[in-house]
Amino acid sequence: MVSPTYQEFVSQLQKMADLSSAIGLLQWDSEVYLPEDASALRGRQVALLTGIVHQEATSKQFGQLMNGLANEKLPLKHKTNVALALKSYNRDKKFNKDFVMKKSLAVSEAFNAWSRAKTANDFSVYAPYLDKLLNLSREEVKILGYKDHPYDAMIDLYERNMNVKTLDRIFDDVKKHIVPLAESQSSKQKLNHTFLQKKYDHKAQFDFTVKLLKDIGYDFKKGRQDISLHPFTIGLNPNDVRVTTRIDESDICNSIWSSIHEGGHALYEQGLNIKEYGLASGAAASLAIHESQSRFWENNIGRSIAFWKYQLPKLKKAFPSQLQGVNINHFFEAINFVKPNLIRTEADELHYHIHIMIRYEIEKEIFTSNIKANDLKPLWNELYKKYIGIKVPNDKNGILQDVHWSHGSFGYFPTYSLGSFYAAQFYATLKNRLPSIEDEISKGNLTSVNTWLQDNIYKHGGTYDAETLCKKVTGSTLDLSYFITYVKNKFKIN
Amino acid sequence: MVSPTYQEFVSQLQKMADLSSAIGLLQWDSEVYLPEDASALRGRQVALLTGIVHQEATSKQFGQLMNGLANEKLPLKHKTNVALALKSYNRDKKFNKDFVMKKSLAVSEAFNAWSRAKTANDFSVYAPYLDKLLNLSREEVKILGYKDHPYDAMIDLYERNMNVKTLDRIFDDVKKHIVPLAESQSSKQKLNHTFLQKKYDHKAQFDFTVKLLKDIGYDFKKGRQDISLHPFTIGLNPNDVRVTTRIDESDICNSIWSSIHEGGHALYEQGLNIKEYGLASGAAASLAIHESQSRFWENNIGRSIAFWKYQLPKLKKAFPSQLQGVNINHFFEAINFVKPNLIRTEADELHYHIHIMIRYEIEKEIFTSNIKANDLKPLWNELYKKYIGIKVPNDKNGILQDVHWSHGSFGYFPTYSLGSFYAAQFYATLKNRLPSIEDEISKGNLTSVNTWLQDNIYKHGGTYDAETLCKKVTGSTLDLSYFITYVKNKFKIN
Repeated sequence: MVSPTYQEFVSQLQKMADLSSAIGLLQWDSEVYLPEDASALRGRQVALLTGIVHQEATSKQFGQLMNGLANEKLPLKHKTNVALALKSYNRDKKFNKDFVMKKSLAVSEAFNAWSRAKTANDFSVYAPYLDKLLNLSREEVKILGYKDHPYDAMIDLYERNMNVKTLDRIFDDVKKHIVPLAESQSSKQKLNHTFLQKKYDHKAQFDFTVKLLKDIGYDFKKGRQDISLHPFTIGLNPNDVRVTTRIDESDICNSIWSSIHEGGHALYEQGLNIKEYGLASGAAASLAIHESQSRFWENNIGRSIAFWKYQLPKLKKAFPSQLQGVNINHFFEAINFVKPNLIRTEADELHYHIHIMIRYEIEKEIFTSNIKANDLKPLWNELYKKYIGIKVPNDKNGILQDVHWSHGSFGYFPTYSLGSFYAAQFYATLKNRLPSIEDEISKGNLTSVNTWLQDNIYKHGGTYDAETLCKKVTGSTLDLSYFITYVKNKFKIN
Repeated sequence: MVSPTYQEFVSQLQKMADLSSAIGLLQWDSEVYLPEDASALRGRQVALLTGIVHQEATSKQFGQLMNGLANEKLPLKHKTNVALALKSYNRDKKFNKDFVMKKSLAVSEAFNAWSRAKTANDFSVYAPYLDKLLNLSREEVKILGYKDHPYDAMIDLYERNMNVKTLDRIFDDVKKHIVPLAESQSSKQKLNHTFLQKKYDHKAQFDFTVKLLKDIGYDFKKGRQDISLHPFTIGLNPNDVRVTTRIDESDICNSIWSSIHEGGHALYEQGLNIKEYGLASGAAASLAIHESQSRFWENNIGRSIAFWKYQLPKLKKAFPSQLQGVNINHFFEAINFVKPNLIRTEADELHYHIHIMIRYEIEKEIFTSNIKANDLKPLWNELYKKYIGIKVPNDKNGILQDVHWSHGSFGYFPTYSLGSFYAAQFYATLKNRLPSIEDEISKGNLTSVNTWLQDNIYKHGGTYDAETLCKKVTGSTLDLSYFITYVKNKFKIN
């Protein structure tokens, strides 16, 4: 029997979730179908609704309700839901509605400017808007407060209980272990297969990715796939989880692995308990855990030899001329080819974390100094030279490549590396529990994988934070050695 | 120099318009892209936002602001904007938020039930939901109040200053003049061209309608076309006006004329003054005038010999085998073939108004008696037998054909006939002012048509009601004889 006060608490959270879903749809539409001239008014709509959500989220009455509940005797899950909602409430209350709406508008404008700048290959179009967001984010840090490092305030928004101290340790390990692995592996590999870069028809690619999504368990009754400039997943609720992909007719890798990646995010969202919609227990545990799910499918499964034993014949059927004579070993080598590259989303599994490390260093700088947008570009280019050994030839493939900063998201990138490392640890655990899993995968049977993820990850929602969940699932907190073992094994490095 | 009070009034209306646009997008998405399992939560979202708009629309403060403005000395256009907003305010205030949200939820449920019922070809799936809407609408009439006829209260929602008395007169004329014309014309025509019902590829149809939309002046930077079960136009604001079409591979008529029809609506919405967005002066004059724009393009232009002189060669290029040997006269005859039919949206220009007359009689009955949904079906079938001489073979092509009632829209249908009659009057006026217009049209030059509509209709927005606007544009109020002359002329009837 649920107490009426708790029920009232649930209703208020669901109301806020309904409003946030409406904003989500406006944003989805903005990136997928919005007519060119309509973006200014769209930005105003989103800001207006963001203000309304903020008002609901910070109402005195809601605060009193939760503070009352916090003193009640509740089942553990309910207690966690109240505690986490109260944490958000206390954080949201630090901001006034004007600030929230101002930031929302600045984000819309920056996103539009970023799109224009990327098309024009000209960072200067975007720089003044980015500066505005940098300043707003620094203001946000001051409002939020922090103990050790200003950047901590931002990181905690995306990954609760994470901070610079821990991330410094993790990215030190990246520098120590992954940077040399990436270098040695790059110099070792000679043959680059170019069959992935032949001409692949747009519609045929789209159709193939739809089949892939179905095969990994994505439910099209509860979602859909569209095309966008930057692939993303948006979970409006567990029954409406949409993914997008990007199609490049001269490179089939883009669509395949972005669809699998977003599919992994989407499986998590579709697997959340709809009865707990709006509550922490019905939401993802954290962004790093979210990313662990996308990287798990994209890499641990989606770049494995087992997966392609089943899928390659299908891909060859869809593209017979392009893939003529390609056997599973060629294909596996090609999709796991390691080389220094410019674009994060196209990076191999080793260089990927160097891309993230660079962004982490830059973001730390943003919150330590008062660095301006115009100084970010030389810093970006310098770090790419230093760590990846590559000269950035233009803005489009340099500092303009990612959408995140234009969304006002600083502190988001580190969760990408964390996600990969969690994914490797989860995958090792799964293989340990179900030794025949790769055999099943190679037959196209992913039921055991889906069930294991449902029972071990999805069903808990956000009841535990990332580290607690990781310990529950794998027996220990995040341990980079799983990832190192995984890549050494994959790339046959002793 | 605009007074600060008026400026505040404008801001409040624009805020409400922004919120309504968000609802509009949720509804557009529901009919175009929403995943199957997501409709229940979507209905709740729409209801929630509808409640918020209602709260904004009926706030005491807003009422005081407008009542103050109503006593100020304002320019005429501003005065009208205030008066019309005040009229809406006084009407909205009669409803409490619970009623508004309850109706919104009932509409979402009824729309879903209608879709399911139509697919299943089974009215009984939908009947209980329709009953709920019938009762809510009758309750609405009681809350709104009326002078002469309860149905008047509903009609005025869609067409201000229109009522049963005037509509009775108009539909009497339909019965007296159009019913016999439809009958005699049907018996006269013998040859039915079947080339329009060959197999026409889905994508090729879509691409052709996109070109048609561009040709008539629709701006794809300020809109887009998608596919839906029931074609519609939604103007979120003048920079975001979306149309949908329906494609039937065994009948090219569906897509072509629904695209031109919705294109006509959309040209009106795109032509409204964005600076007056949210105000009556930046909105359509009425639904009948809106429909006059769609019917003007669909019929007066879109089924004219002049228009197809230019477009037929293009259509033949897109579908060479299907249209081999078809000349302009065959084509013109085929697209203007008159015969009794079941489906309103596929009706010829004569039978169309008999379809509307039937719905008008049924709706009048709904608000005069306490008729139940289950009794509407036999009534529907009886009237189709009586006026069109056709036995309704199933629910799908009978009472389930239209979406409108499932939207809770009763009183909307009559505006369709009014729209056609206004369109004929506008077209006659245009031809009178610009005698060479059909010559221009036959060369594919629609600039003069677009300019004339912009200067005479669009630019006024809703400053005048339909009858005042009609008088301003044509010199007289609505006069059915223009339509009678137009069809007699088209069908060569003496």
